[in-house]
Amino acid sequence: MAVVKDGLHLRTRVVWGRGSVSRLGEHARAEGFARALLVADPGLVAAGHVARAEAALEAAGIATACFSDFGENPDGLMCVRGLAAYRAHDADSLVALGGGSSLDCAKGIGFLATGGGRVRDYRGWAKAKRPLPPMIGVPTTAGTGSEAQTYALLSDEDSHEKLACGDPSAAFRVALLDPELTLSAPRAVTATAGFDALSHAVESWVTTVRTPFSDLFAREAFTLLARNYARVLEAPDDVEARGAMLMGSFLAGAAIEQSMLGAAHACANPLTARHDVPHGEAVALMLPHVVRFNAVVAGPRYAALLAAIGEPCSPEAAPELLAQRLDTLARLGGLPRTLRERGVSIDAIPALAEDAAPQWTGAHNPRPFDAAAARELYACAL
Amino acid sequence: MAVVKDGLHLRTRVVWGRGSVSRLGEHARAEGFARALLVADPGLVAAGHVARAEAALEAAGIATACFSDFGENPDGLMCVRGLAAYRAHDADSLVALGGGSSLDCAKGIGFLATGGGRVRDYRGWAKAKRPLPPMIGVPTTAGTGSEAQTYALLSDEDSHEKLACGDPSAAFRVALLDPELTLSAPRAVTATAGFDALSHAVESWVTTVRTPFSDLFAREAFTLLARNYARVLEAPDDVEARGAMLMGSFLAGAAIEQSMLGAAHACANPLTARHDVPHGEAVALMLPHVVRFNAVVAGPRYAALLAAIGEPCSPEAAPELLAQRLDTLARLGGLPRTLRERGVSIDAIPALAEDAAPQWTGAHNPRPFDAAAARELYACAL
Repeated sequence: MAVVKDGLHLRTRVVWGRGSVSRLGEHARAEGFARALLVADPGLVAAGHVARAEAALEAAGIATACFSDFGENPDGLMCVRGLAAYRAHDADSLVALGGGSSLDCAKGIGFLATGGGRVRDYRGWAKAKRPLPPMIGVPTTAGTGSEAQTYALLSDEDSHEKLACGDPSAAFRVALLDPELTLSAPRAVTATAGFDALSHAVESWVTTVRTPFSDLFAREAFTLLARNYARVLEAPDDVEARGAMLMGSFLAGAAIEQSMLGAAHACANPLTARHDVPHGEAVALMLPHVVRFNAVVAGPRYAALLAAIGEPCSPEAAPELLAQRLDTLARLGGLPRTLRERGVSIDAIPALAEDAAPQWTGAHNPRPFDAAAARELYACAL
Repeated sequence: MAVVKDGLHLRTRVVWGRGSVSRLGEHARAEGFARALLVADPGLVAAGHVARAEAALEAAGIATACFSDFGENPDGLMCVRGLAAYRAHDADSLVALGGGSSLDCAKGIGFLATGGGRVRDYRGWAKAKRPLPPMIGVPTTAGTGSEAQTYALLSDEDSHEKLACGDPSAAFRVALLDPELTLSAPRAVTATAGFDALSHAVESWVTTVRTPFSDLFAREAFTLLARNYARVLEAPDDVEARGAMLMGSFLAGAAIEQSMLGAAHACANPLTARHDVPHGEAVALMLPHVVRFNAVVAGPRYAALLAAIGEPCSPEAAPELLAQRLDTLARLGGLPRTLRERGVSIDAIPALAEDAAPQWTGAHNPRPFDAAAARELYACAL
């Protein structure tokens, strides 16, 4: 999979600000949308966000239908159902509203809408037969950063394998970052999604394929996320802090596009696949241990990250300090701190490690990562 | 002129690295170029850069003709001559190689190639009748940052007025940043262009319309430029320092796209128009005084800029410290430090101030800027 692309190409226009969702119709019209399928998970219908987005689209003269018949970790079957809704509405465009599941599901529908077949046909990079329909992404959690990415993470409907499907035309035309939309997120979602974003910043900051732009985005993302994570948990109505988290998760997503991820994500994926540990929790379980594991090669980089938030320290001390800080934030978010808390026993480690070793996200970890390393990391997290 | 665009839209793919010009043909082919007009000023023909670029394009099967019949501050007439060359070659695309003049001239040719008329018809934002031909920008100086911008600065052939002509399609498809191309620049060019870039970072950092992205780009640009300006003057063959300057000038250009400029540019333009002071020198003459002038409103911002290069200080002390540092760098570059050195006398100030006050770049200065302010600033610079 050609994951490293040449140079920096930020294909998505980023629009941000409190209340900016009211301008969704204006942007959709500017991008030529006439008939849009709004892909939004059922929780957002209940929160009233769907009605708000529909109203903005309809006011701009865009005929809108809503598709909500999908769940977390969208699979190929859900995308096929979405395609049926897209066809039934005779849609020409997609608006994704929600967390990573909504955004990735919309991309999956987009692949099928112009190229047919099944989502597994699009695994890898640039497999779209024709450009996807134009899409706008409106995240309602500060988490995956999918709104900044050309990849969708989808599940194969049969094997349940994770498929990373990327294409230049799978980039959203516009990412609309409205912090008001994140106010309704339950505390657990805010904590889990926020930690996921934080992990994107920390991992993309040290990969072997990082670039000046991934560095720029990852450092700013870490600064925004580390400074506001506790705040949005303590004062969930602080729109400014919510906005900082949303911008941070976008930037962390943009950093990943350049630099990929690391061993924490490689270890997290099997925890999700085999033990149903939600992605953000799985990453939170592994990340502090990965930071310690990387200490021998990444000390100066972690020190620079701490310096960026005004906590300068030596390269020797940095990994442990950063790991402790991440651990503290995870506790604050109520995230599990041991695998046992999530029902994962020592017996499960060998199989998890076998699954983790070949994960593509481990290939760019600063310290070489293999099954032995994975066993060590899972043992630390036990 | 609708200069403030909505959100961030970085339309240009950025490719960087030593020797990356050898991949020019590959990128041009990927963008669909078949017959390219290479717009490069005569100095680059002599330096051998044109031959290198032509070879890269021809090797990729792109029929290439070169246009060099233009000079600094390109005007409408030069663009018309370029259009004739574009037509004679039956070109479908443009490659701009050189400093800001080459890049802006190529954009001017692009406006005329698809829309006809004269460059003055394109003054303002989004006046292109049809999208410009696809263009690649290859800067050979670290200066204007035109490769990051949707605007061209051109002169009216009759009135010699500066025309800022911008359009979404005037963005380069690719900006190719190869520090090796900047090695041949004479010291004076390195000094003047580099200070121009530095001024873009300093001015865009404090404007009234700055955004999270202009802040991100401007701070990183300032860090790269302030840390490497002296180095490229002292060790002109240091490719790493040259690369940092080139990335810095790109980022500063990207910051301007978001946030515009300030009073130093408003005061500089009349010095160029009336007294032929080269743009970079004019900016260097004015910028330290503008920083002092802005002290009452921008102290904390300037302090943050100094903190970014590891020189923390109080908001009260920051403007004077920054002004002195800029002055020191300008001296190091051999740039004039007083208007008198450039033959501008006290008698010239009233007329200069009248011209400076309505400049659009002054409208976003953090401290309100008018003719009285301009008189004060010119008097300081005398």
